[in-house]
Amino acid sequence: MEEIIDYTLIEKALELIDNKRFAELKTLLEEENPADINDIFDELNDQQSILVYRLLPKELAAEVFVEMDTDKQEYLINAFSDSQLKDVFDELYYDDTADIIEEMPANVVKRILKIVSPDMRKAVNELLKYPEDSAGSLMTTEFVRLKKHFTVKESLDLIRSVGVNKETIYTCYVTDDKNHLIGIVTAKDLLLSELNECISEIMEENVIYVNTLEDTEQVVLMFGKYDFLALPVVDKESRLVGIITVDDAIDVMQEETEEDFSKISGIVPGDTEYLKTSVIKLWASRIPWLMILMISATFTGMIISKFENALAVLPILTAFIPMLMGTGGNAGSQASVTVIRGISLGQVEFRDFFKVLWKECRVSILCGLVLGIAAVGKVMIVDNLMMHNPEVTVFVALVVGLTLFATIVSAKIIGCALPLLAKKIGLDPAVMASPLITTLIDTVSLLVYFYFATVILKI
Amino acid sequence: MEEIIDYTLIEKALELIDNKRFAELKTLLEEENPADINDIFDELNDQQSILVYRLLPKELAAEVFVEMDTDKQEYLINAFSDSQLKDVFDELYYDDTADIIEEMPANVVKRILKIVSPDMRKAVNELLKYPEDSAGSLMTTEFVRLKKHFTVKESLDLIRSVGVNKETIYTCYVTDDKNHLIGIVTAKDLLLSELNECISEIMEENVIYVNTLEDTEQVVLMFGKYDFLALPVVDKESRLVGIITVDDAIDVMQEETEEDFSKISGIVPGDTEYLKTSVIKLWASRIPWLMILMISATFTGMIISKFENALAVLPILTAFIPMLMGTGGNAGSQASVTVIRGISLGQVEFRDFFKVLWKECRVSILCGLVLGIAAVGKVMIVDNLMMHNPEVTVFVALVVGLTLFATIVSAKIIGCALPLLAKKIGLDPAVMASPLITTLIDTVSLLVYFYFATVILKI
Repeated sequence: MEEIIDYTLIEKALELIDNKRFAELKTLLEEENPADINDIFDELNDQQSILVYRLLPKELAAEVFVEMDTDKQEYLINAFSDSQLKDVFDELYYDDTADIIEEMPANVVKRILKIVSPDMRKAVNELLKYPEDSAGSLMTTEFVRLKKHFTVKESLDLIRSVGVNKETIYTCYVTDDKNHLIGIVTAKDLLLSELNECISEIMEENVIYVNTLEDTEQVVLMFGKYDFLALPVVDKESRLVGIITVDDAIDVMQEETEEDFSKISGIVPGDTEYLKTSVIKLWASRIPWLMILMISATFTGMIISKFENALAVLPILTAFIPMLMGTGGNAGSQASVTVIRGISLGQVEFRDFFKVLWKECRVSILCGLVLGIAAVGKVMIVDNLMMHNPEVTVFVALVVGLTLFATIVSAKIIGCALPLLAKKIGLDPAVMASPLITTLIDTVSLLVYFYFATVILKI
Repeated sequence: MEEIIDYTLIEKALELIDNKRFAELKTLLEEENPADINDIFDELNDQQSILVYRLLPKELAAEVFVEMDTDKQEYLINAFSDSQLKDVFDELYYDDTADIIEEMPANVVKRILKIVSPDMRKAVNELLKYPEDSAGSLMTTEFVRLKKHFTVKESLDLIRSVGVNKETIYTCYVTDDKNHLIGIVTAKDLLLSELNECISEIMEENVIYVNTLEDTEQVVLMFGKYDFLALPVVDKESRLVGIITVDDAIDVMQEETEEDFSKISGIVPGDTEYLKTSVIKLWASRIPWLMILMISATFTGMIISKFENALAVLPILTAFIPMLMGTGGNAGSQASVTVIRGISLGQVEFRDFFKVLWKECRVSILCGLVLGIAAVGKVMIVDNLMMHNPEVTVFVALVVGLTLFATIVSAKIIGCALPLLAKKIGLDPAVMASPLITTLIDTVSLLVYFYFATVILKI
């Protein structure tokens, strides 16, 4: 795989900066994509950033600004004069401005809101009212509105006159007098229809939309399901207030996926790239679950202490504990991660609880049988025959095999049930993931182990 | 969160089917989105599917067909007459046809290729030549080509005449006589420019593209980075051969994410939804890693056997083994999952190896110190003071604390290093994830534990 970061470009740019060949650098940057230019800024210190930023033409400068880290944005804003600041923000879309403002300290926000146009100020203030993780917080208010009595020609003329400031012109929205959404028309429809046709004839009336307060998770699922380029957002009175574009949906999709990855590996999710995150921040995101799980391991310790005498009679039993607990943990996390992803993707719901449970029962019995028999075989062949350990009898092998079977079955059932139950009571299913479930399974498998050992080996 | 599947619609449809009210059902379905209609088909048996499928108008029928499971597609194809089959495939895009054909048995493929138009047959055969997971296998050949001497009006006229069959008209591609890609023009550019302007004046010449053989992972990263609606694909001679649209990129993005989730939880990735996967298939995807990891746990067992005498002298030492191994596993998987995701997202490369190592060193020392001290405290307070266990001395607490510190540091270093090394030698980093690393860390932590126990406790 090639690299997604163009290191050749970065090196070339750094060389030009070092040699103060700014005219060449300007020419180079003007040809590049904003995302690639931002990769260069990632390698520059603050002073260099200002210097290079001033080389960019107005529109490109704004596009690069949107791509930057919050820290760099804040530094640049503080370094800008008011008129420079206005130049940047005049080029931005309202939703990008709102996103930037949300991350800035109060004094910077005040300064930005002072210099931007009244229209932008009003729109941004509206956008900032929506709760985080709501469709409203994700939408933009810059889209093309049509009326159903417009002809195709009138619509195209309208797009020509206002389109340059709209985030997309590829889906246009038809509203009535009360601003209710009554249809959509794509640019493709407009381009392929006769100029004198009426919008009401070509518009699609069965429009899929979301409410401003809808969870962004749901928005992302809808983009995945319906292949939209944009999704309209309506308020409680069904009035069209904004649209969400596919590029923003992709960003949220990626953020949510990374959150799930963090949670199932016992990390408190953050929103910065690994290499750009400070050691302290990484530590803070990792220590809580490590601590909780370490302390909860007290239970397993107590169980083992309680059966100290049994272990003293037959010390070889200790040797199988890591294998039993490890396999239980693996079996449990297979089930829990599968169910957690199923929930995240909208493929599994609480209503499927018994379907899931029944499926995992059967899968776990199959897995448990195979592994249980394999374990008995392994213990007899490796520990008894090859290593001539006299402590290892066929009864010990039987205890290990039976415990493994019971551990796998209970691990898979706990693993599939907990995320669904968590979802039912309004908790985050992903937090019920492997680390937490593993601790629970450890406890179960030790109890089962000592039970079988006591009953079968009579110790 | 609302549900992404419209169960009310499904129930309504099922009721109409049960009561044979097909005219009403037809009217209902005509208003719905293909993805929602497919949710209904998911609940129908094969006979019902054919019945309901025949109610759909031609174009919608084809759109629903693309959404269906492979099994249902195959059943319908076998049930169709040749002319019905032709009706469906005539409506499909070339890349969708290629995707369907790839999943079908040879006799079905033969039948499809016989009935489709010669143009489609040729295009599909071309598409099928590209290796799986290559950009070529993902692209469509149905896009709008412009020439640089065209005017905007000529271009719009061309779109009007050919656009209905193109997968997107929103990005048009400008090629020279030898079919080399020399620029792109968006529909927005066309709509906002004067009709007599020349394409060469408005086209963007710095086009980002991929090669047909580029890995789809790279393609997905590019969509995430550049916010494209479509990405052009060129062959070895730099000739434009196709485009990849954003909806297909999102699908691949989701597939690859789910593969990573599977791998880090020790599951062999599959491509069907959990609830639709058979028990045997689930078992087959889960048993390999469970088996490998169970067998590799032989090492931990052997280490414990070797130190049986030490444990016999001080049985309480056994009680801490689960906690030490569990915390080591958690610490390791925090590091490995973080690095694996960094690699998948193109944010971490092998060139960052020492940067990552140095970062994890510092994070792990911080985590190790805090947890080590907490463990000493916990052992002294809970086991010594509260449970009055005479075996638990301050030296035992020290052994536990020191082992925990060493385990966490080595767990994080192993966890971050293995995925990067795997990537370097061309293996899949995600396979180096938690389960495999945990087994390794278990071994390390036991060795360290017994080393400290022998040295400090002199047993």
